Amino acid sequence: MAIIMTTRRIKASGKYLLLPLADQKGWFPAPGTIQYLGLYQNGRLLEEYELSLSEKPRAWGVLYLERYAGQELELRLEGGEERLLELLEVSDRTRDAALYQEPERPLAHFTPMRGFMNDPNGLFYHRGEYHYFAQLNPYGFSAGNTHWLHAVSRDLIHWRELPYALLPDETGRMYSGGGVVDVDNTSGLGVGGEPPIFLFYTPAGSKTRWSRGRSFEIAVAVSTDGGRSFEKYPGNPIVPNLSFMNRDPKVVWTGECWAMAIFLDNDRYMILYSDDLLHWEQGDELHIRGAAECPDLFALPLEGDPGQVKWVLWGSTDSYLVGRFHGRHFVPETDAVQGPSHRAYSAYSDSLRSPGGYAAQTFTGAPEGRVVQMAWVRVCPKSGPFVSCASLPVELTLRTTEEGPRLFQQPIQEVGALYENTFEFKNRGLEEIERIPSQYLGEAMDIRFRFTVKPGKLIAISVRGMLIVYDPNTGRLLLPVGAYDIGPVGEELDLRVVTDRCSVEVFANEGRFGMAIAAILDPNDISLRPVYLEAGIGIDLELHRLGNMWSEEAPAGS
Amino acid sequence: MAIIMTTRRIKASGKYLLLPLADQKGWFPAPGTIQYLGLYQNGRLLEEYELSLSEKPRAWGVLYLERYAGQELELRLEGGEERLLELLEVSDRTRDAALYQEPERPLAHFTPMRGFMNDPNGLFYHRGEYHYFAQLNPYGFSAGNTHWLHAVSRDLIHWRELPYALLPDETGRMYSGGGVVDVDNTSGLGVGGEPPIFLFYTPAGSKTRWSRGRSFEIAVAVSTDGGRSFEKYPGNPIVPNLSFMNRDPKVVWTGECWAMAIFLDNDRYMILYSDDLLHWEQGDELHIRGAAECPDLFALPLEGDPGQVKWVLWGSTDSYLVGRFHGRHFVPETDAVQGPSHRAYSAYSDSLRSPGGYAAQTFTGAPEGRVVQMAWVRVCPKSGPFVSCASLPVELTLRTTEEGPRLFQQPIQEVGALYENTFEFKNRGLEEIERIPSQYLGEAMDIRFRFTVKPGKLIAISVRGMLIVYDPNTGRLLLPVGAYDIGPVGEELDLRVVTDRCSVEVFANEGRFGMAIAAILDPNDISLRPVYLEAGIGIDLELHRLGNMWSEEAPAGS
Repeated sequence: MAIIMTTRRIKASGKYLLLPLADQKGWFPAPGTIQYLGLYQNGRLLEEYELSLSEKPRAWGVLYLERYAGQELELRLEGGEERLLELLEVSDRTRDAALYQEPERPLAHFTPMRGFMNDPNGLFYHRGEYHYFAQLNPYGFSAGNTHWLHAVSRDLIHWRELPYALLPDETGRMYSGGGVVDVDNTSGLGVGGEPPIFLFYTPAGSKTRWSRGRSFEIAVAVSTDGGRSFEKYPGNPIVPNLSFMNRDPKVVWTGECWAMAIFLDNDRYMILYSDDLLHWEQGDELHIRGAAECPDLFALPLEGDPGQVKWVLWGSTDSYLVGRFHGRHFVPETDAVQGPSHRAYSAYSDSLRSPGGYAAQTFTGAPEGRVVQMAWVRVCPKSGPFVSCASLPVELTLRTTEEGPRLFQQPIQEVGALYENTFEFKNRGLEEIERIPSQYLGEAMDIRFRFTVKPGKLIAISVRGMLIVYDPNTGRLLLPVGAYDIGPVGEELDLRVVTDRCSVEVFANEGRFGMAIAAILDPNDISLRPVYLEAGIGIDLELHRLGNMWSEEAPAGS
Repeated sequence: MAIIMTTRRIKASGKYLLLPLADQKGWFPAPGTIQYLGLYQNGRLLEEYELSLSEKPRAWGVLYLERYAGQELELRLEGGEERLLELLEVSDRTRDAALYQEPERPLAHFTPMRGFMNDPNGLFYHRGEYHYFAQLNPYGFSAGNTHWLHAVSRDLIHWRELPYALLPDETGRMYSGGGVVDVDNTSGLGVGGEPPIFLFYTPAGSKTRWSRGRSFEIAVAVSTDGGRSFEKYPGNPIVPNLSFMNRDPKVVWTGECWAMAIFLDNDRYMILYSDDLLHWEQGDELHIRGAAECPDLFALPLEGDPGQVKWVLWGSTDSYLVGRFHGRHFVPETDAVQGPSHRAYSAYSDSLRSPGGYAAQTFTGAPEGRVVQMAWVRVCPKSGPFVSCASLPVELTLRTTEEGPRLFQQPIQEVGALYENTFEFKNRGLEEIERIPSQYLGEAMDIRFRFTVKPGKLIAISVRGMLIVYDPNTGRLLLPVGAYDIGPVGEELDLRVVTDRCSVEVFANEGRFGMAIAAILDPNDISLRPVYLEAGIGIDLELHRLGNMWSEEAPAGS
């Protein structure tokens, strides 16, 4: 079978090359649906992408042409029918129907402007701004063409997307990693007193035609402009391939040196050490039972005691070890702890939705040592230019429980910036929930309940059609995605539920339980419903309708 | 403020007048969004509708012009901007994108071809066909312009929509009622040995400008062609206004005479009696506590014993009296029984969705005395040419319980016509549910579970994201819409769940509990998930993926 190759010369006379993109379902593109688009200049390949073009696009992708302004380019399309290449348009205007105002775009959770997003990457804080990066396919609705999306926020709630930080190249797709500010210029790469900022990433060799024959390595890109643009380091790779598909470097300062956690394979991780962020020595291998990929490393004071700082080595699916650094060794002090998202994932085969957050990462360098974590929530809206959202940022603490040290989580207090209508009552009956006036209800809500717990008596409410049940007999919280032991509960159960268009987050027992559930809810169902509570039990309620995070700032690029 | 009136002359040169209809939310049109469209001929008003026209329609309404073929008509539009009237098109082709194949159209539940549907009406069986009628606004997505939709089916599953049975006129909108075949021609209206078929309806006077000053009455339309077309009876009304908004006649043969149940007001009903279906005498007033509107009357043998036939007087929200006829008196033998949909409605303030079925009606004259009931499920898909679906037909039986005689319900066995992929296991653990191969799962499924019940031990599963919990401590089934006492359960709990794109139906305890829940589910979530079950308890499962009811017959009018 001959593969059709079409070519077309264009002049970058507009800012954008617009791509009519077919809808896609699932993690990988369906076989036979992909074409390869190459951008050439003087016969040299500048960019290459896998696309699924369509005359009836789900949405129009935007390939930024500014860097070629006014220049001639040759487009080569391999596969698909000849007319497909003619569908592409050079323009100064995008074809978005109502960017950031789409009916399925979450109101209170970060979503990419366009494309398929997955793992959070490179999270750091610098001079009043939180920087968020994430795996992104700007040119499709399943995985591929992996760029690093980049967004900034002063409050972790209102985000502004910036130009992509990393684009795929001949070393492969830009797989996951972490970011760190080299405050003391240990690398010597700082310019003019400005501390250099490092994004550690994984060039995923052999995952594209362009990178055929190359292996997974660890590489770095450096910003000398305060985190606005990143240049890939000429000395890459900084760590060679150590295992078939080693990946996902996350770098932190231990207090004595830099430490980089990477994934090797199975549940095997390694920590490497460096004094200058550029030269790394291999350290111990560690196993996080049940985890894979996307390590994180962060420090937390146990029970808030600065004399008892512990380190957490985290794996993608809500599994972690608590331990400490002893020189250039990580010493686990617990077995692998497995959180609710882990347990949900291990019982999950759905390729289109995530039962809980995945590949969570914390911000390095956040003020006052706070540890703020964001996760990927995999969810496929039926329409619109994006797929997936981020979890609401949560603040982590480490507490002593009867099972040992455990992470607790609560939504960051900054979510209050979105509160636009608040309703409260204390010590009322279950039926009071029916009487909440409708102007307090909405698609996005932050709802805190406090229930008196009576032995053997269920507590059951539903929020936007999602039933939530607490069973004191077994100490379990029952959710549509599973039943979770939330630890010993005293005389009162606190339950916090954050709803939005594509997710429901549930926190219970002072944050010992926390989970982000992918859920596309009926937009017409904004109900809170009492379901069951023993007569005579009082409830405290605090309900905040959440506004639209996108309404305050005009997003970049729109 | 001047109301703009525009006029336009058209020739009925095509079969359809196409109307670009704005989306509407809620039960009534939003204030200020309505225009009045009149069809005139020689200055005489033939038809008048309330419309909300739009340049960006949700869908195109179809006003059938066949009855005016080739004739000149004058259109007058009152309200809105002048250009609106120019948007209307006379055509032989509709503008449906993919009629009956829309992504949100339920697969296994009846939906109207186009428009806003509510109460089932006029249900009868005649010569191998079940006839379904329903309240319909063909020209909008909220209530108004009430026609009677008409559809027929040989198996209660595959339906074919026929031309509207009743159109609004100067007596008002065509509000609800019942249908009956006058098998013995007691009315004398039969022609050529063909039994006449009666649709009793409520002309809702003063609900339109056209019917201003008129009151609610009881009227009838008669078919002498076996139920294909219905002529409004020249002697209408057959029952004058008895109460401010009396309505919803339902007529049955008691064995001695005809009986008509009508709604008066509050929870007050009346039964009238007749020998010829045309002349009616008033009988007793009856109260069905908690009910309103839409009565039904049907006979069932208690425990299947033909010597113990009882009559049920039913009100719209799943409330009923069980009793008997004593001559021309209905004698209740129970207090009002209130089913789960009733309890859900009474705790419900959402104007866009129904917590359970509403205005259920049974078919008169069904073979072998079977009593088959269908209800309205109020649900608003985000897009597409229709709003609301019907419940799956259920077969009712009357059984003796510790509380007295109670209706039990199960989906009709004909649903088996849609089974296209079946998966079964017996006495396996809860985790077996995770192992169901994906080809057995779908948006529409009929799933039967059987669980061993252990004292104090919860049973919890989720189906397409809907959590369902049984609590043996309280004997309650917990659903997102409420907690329901399902009566004493023996050593095993049977649970049947029927899912579709716009609803989830739940039946439990041999049908003592049954409820149709409006629920727009995430199309990507076709999961069954184990949530909680005491270790060692076995489950029986029988899972049928349901095919598309619309794929077998080309629907009429498409």
